[in-house]
Amino acid sequence: MVTEKRWINPLDAMFLWGESVETKMHVASLMPFTPPEGSGPEFLSELYEEILAAPVASPWNLRLTHPHVLRHPGQAWKVDDRFDIDYHVRRSALPSPGDERELGIVVSRLHSHQLDFTRPPWEVHLIEGLEGGRFALYTKVHHSLVDGYSAVRIQAKSMSKDPSDRDMPFFFSVSPSGPRKRTTPEEEPERVSLPTRAVRTATAPARAAVRLGGTLASTGLGTAKAVAGVELGSRAEGSELVAPGQAPRTILNARCGRNRRLATQQVELDRIRAVAKAAGGTVNDVVMAMCGGALRRYLLERDELPRKPLVAFLPVNIRPSGDTGGGNRVGATLASLATDREDARERLEAVISSTTSAKGQMTDLSQLGVLAYSGYLLGPGGLQVLSAMTGTSLPVPTSFNLCISNLPGPQTTHYLRGARLEAIYPMSIPVHGMALNITVESYDGHLDFGFIGCRDAVPSLQRVAVYAGDELELLEEAYAVG
Amino acid sequence: MVTEKRWINPLDAMFLWGESVETKMHVASLMPFTPPEGSGPEFLSELYEEILAAPVASPWNLRLTHPHVLRHPGQAWKVDDRFDIDYHVRRSALPSPGDERELGIVVSRLHSHQLDFTRPPWEVHLIEGLEGGRFALYTKVHHSLVDGYSAVRIQAKSMSKDPSDRDMPFFFSVSPSGPRKRTTPEEEPERVSLPTRAVRTATAPARAAVRLGGTLASTGLGTAKAVAGVELGSRAEGSELVAPGQAPRTILNARCGRNRRLATQQVELDRIRAVAKAAGGTVNDVVMAMCGGALRRYLLERDELPRKPLVAFLPVNIRPSGDTGGGNRVGATLASLATDREDARERLEAVISSTTSAKGQMTDLSQLGVLAYSGYLLGPGGLQVLSAMTGTSLPVPTSFNLCISNLPGPQTTHYLRGARLEAIYPMSIPVHGMALNITVESYDGHLDFGFIGCRDAVPSLQRVAVYAGDELELLEEAYAVG
Repeated sequence: MVTEKRWINPLDAMFLWGESVETKMHVASLMPFTPPEGSGPEFLSELYEEILAAPVASPWNLRLTHPHVLRHPGQAWKVDDRFDIDYHVRRSALPSPGDERELGIVVSRLHSHQLDFTRPPWEVHLIEGLEGGRFALYTKVHHSLVDGYSAVRIQAKSMSKDPSDRDMPFFFSVSPSGPRKRTTPEEEPERVSLPTRAVRTATAPARAAVRLGGTLASTGLGTAKAVAGVELGSRAEGSELVAPGQAPRTILNARCGRNRRLATQQVELDRIRAVAKAAGGTVNDVVMAMCGGALRRYLLERDELPRKPLVAFLPVNIRPSGDTGGGNRVGATLASLATDREDARERLEAVISSTTSAKGQMTDLSQLGVLAYSGYLLGPGGLQVLSAMTGTSLPVPTSFNLCISNLPGPQTTHYLRGARLEAIYPMSIPVHGMALNITVESYDGHLDFGFIGCRDAVPSLQRVAVYAGDELELLEEAYAVG
Repeated sequence: MVTEKRWINPLDAMFLWGESVETKMHVASLMPFTPPEGSGPEFLSELYEEILAAPVASPWNLRLTHPHVLRHPGQAWKVDDRFDIDYHVRRSALPSPGDERELGIVVSRLHSHQLDFTRPPWEVHLIEGLEGGRFALYTKVHHSLVDGYSAVRIQAKSMSKDPSDRDMPFFFSVSPSGPRKRTTPEEEPERVSLPTRAVRTATAPARAAVRLGGTLASTGLGTAKAVAGVELGSRAEGSELVAPGQAPRTILNARCGRNRRLATQQVELDRIRAVAKAAGGTVNDVVMAMCGGALRRYLLERDELPRKPLVAFLPVNIRPSGDTGGGNRVGATLASLATDREDARERLEAVISSTTSAKGQMTDLSQLGVLAYSGYLLGPGGLQVLSAMTGTSLPVPTSFNLCISNLPGPQTTHYLRGARLEAIYPMSIPVHGMALNITVESYDGHLDFGFIGCRDAVPSLQRVAVYAGDELELLEEAYAVG
């Protein structure tokens, strides 16, 4: 039995510092599947037994040395010598009729519970009872153990492009640094070049908010400014560039309760690409315009639309090419969602202008430069989060209203023991002061949206998901595509 | 909207002081039902809609004034003006085949989650997918809001003896002090006369452990001794009487983890009565002998049986007749489980001798006297709990190994909207230093056992439940009854 400790790195440790019953620092994926043609109920029970019997690779067998004191200065990972697979792998079922609504309710509840830090902090739920004999996997992992970007890579490695292939390892049998099987170019991480084509972000939207303290503590705000200043020179000018402190205060900037609500949306990537091409923007610009339009309508209905446009916080993966490890390497930038524009086309144009300014800022920055710049941008956000956490109404400037991130998933149909993976809905982290997170994952020709919000601060979240789909139709009309 | 506060009383507040992610102070009932003959899946969805539309009575609409600081000195209850019935009433389902094992797993998980103190601290889960088209209700309430005894009374009032009666209020539409409907003698609380016939206890086994601090703080151990001494005189002598500090240390006295495991058992009350009559003891004596025999076998298998007999902590309801309110009024006593005896008959005889000594102590004590005496008996137990909580191995005396309590439920078949209530399995509170709780509820001619333990400290708990049934058979053989 290995009893060595692996010291936790400061960025990963930030997710332990941020953990509370109201701000749970775990990320998850919801993945519905269609079982192989002609398979019966034994398919699921056999799958469950097979999962229980699978070997567990590092880091999936690691637990904290100080589970009761998450902020312990000597926090480290060690092998759990009482590892109990039966605890981590769970069966659940949907009440009838097992539709998307019931799935959303059950998964929202699962996402609301804290992980157990006396064990390796992950769970997988095998959910049966979806309409049409389908099932779903809900996999949940603490962000301190594996970052979302690595998790997506591991997930892809645990499924096959060939429905008859039944030998792929389960995700918890794969190490981030372990030997790869059939790695294809679309599964490779790319050198971050910012939103030029699509924002290469990592899953956890809250990461930078959490990491703020870390960045600021390690470099000091002044140092962050200085490092960014040296690299950026005078490029920080630009009319559409969103600067810190420019965001309006909204209901999305509330303190979080402990409960979550999930809403999902799936759209064809080609539809988004057609709009992006017609508008001269990126896939991510269209995603932002869809979300902006949806939030505009949602806030209008609640009589809560601010005069100034909402600002999105965009995490950016700054892991260099070839770095496959499990840590968190994330920067961030800010861009307008143009919720002040009533017209869908005008809104998209304003978004493109805003992200173009933002990406001009960060192109060619070194990894340290990106981190430092992000720290500078989001510096005042620390006060914003603090203000929301303490429930006070300090007149602090608001830098962002929500987080939107974008994960590149596998681009071909994948299978788990012959069952077809229908979608990968990413579920990330709302925090105090940022009660809504939107994460988007591309998979098999479509984009899967996971909207995850505080149940109290963002009621009727499903509407935002529905409206995002409506907004794409409006954009298609505006650009006469689709 | 009522905005008045109701100050929380010190005994109820103790359950807030004791609350932690590892020691959750909620109690629950698991109630399986058989739907009416010929009803289809619409029965459950209609029931769910009907529950959602039902009015909410006090205290079910009350939340804490300081939900984030449970130990706040000014803690009080106030009406939740954002009451969200959709949050409190939930649908769940069992994975196939929906047998008792799957039900136990799902309910164990539900019982492992903390209640949300920013809302009225209760939940009800409508669980479908039990074998044979059956369903179950799992109702969960924090012990600070309603004590188990009152909860059982309310539960009985929310069901009918007539399957065609569809007008009974749901439990959360009933106030403990509200007008009653069809109260029958067997649903009346009785003046506590101690285990003479059956121990009239309340649900929450941990209550006295928690309350200890309160009793000792309010009266001082010396005062408690003095009050008890005045009333008891010299009756504290007696060879079979279990005194504090006499219990062996066992694996049941471990620190609790955050996860729970439920096991259940159901036996006919007439079988227990026949053994009790033959042995000259009470129903509760036979229950204790069954549990003692089961634990002896369980501990032997794990090579953990102590030489000295296990000691059970027996909560005693000291609410006077006519007091229908929702507070906690509980004393406690100690008795041997005679796990040192190999023979079932000898074990039961030793239990009878022990409980007879204990009940002789408390008969005719005033309510204050019972409380004071309990505080005296369990005084050293505070150290025991403290020792287990801090994880230290202080050489403190152990006063008890587990809690066994006994609730009188309704004695006739009850129905919920025509669905037959099959059983009422009570689920109570393991705490640090007392990782197993056994609560028994009588209903409709049988006794329903709820074994609830820490998942880590008491593995394979289902065996204890099975062995308890085996022990009754051994006793029937020993006394040639049944």
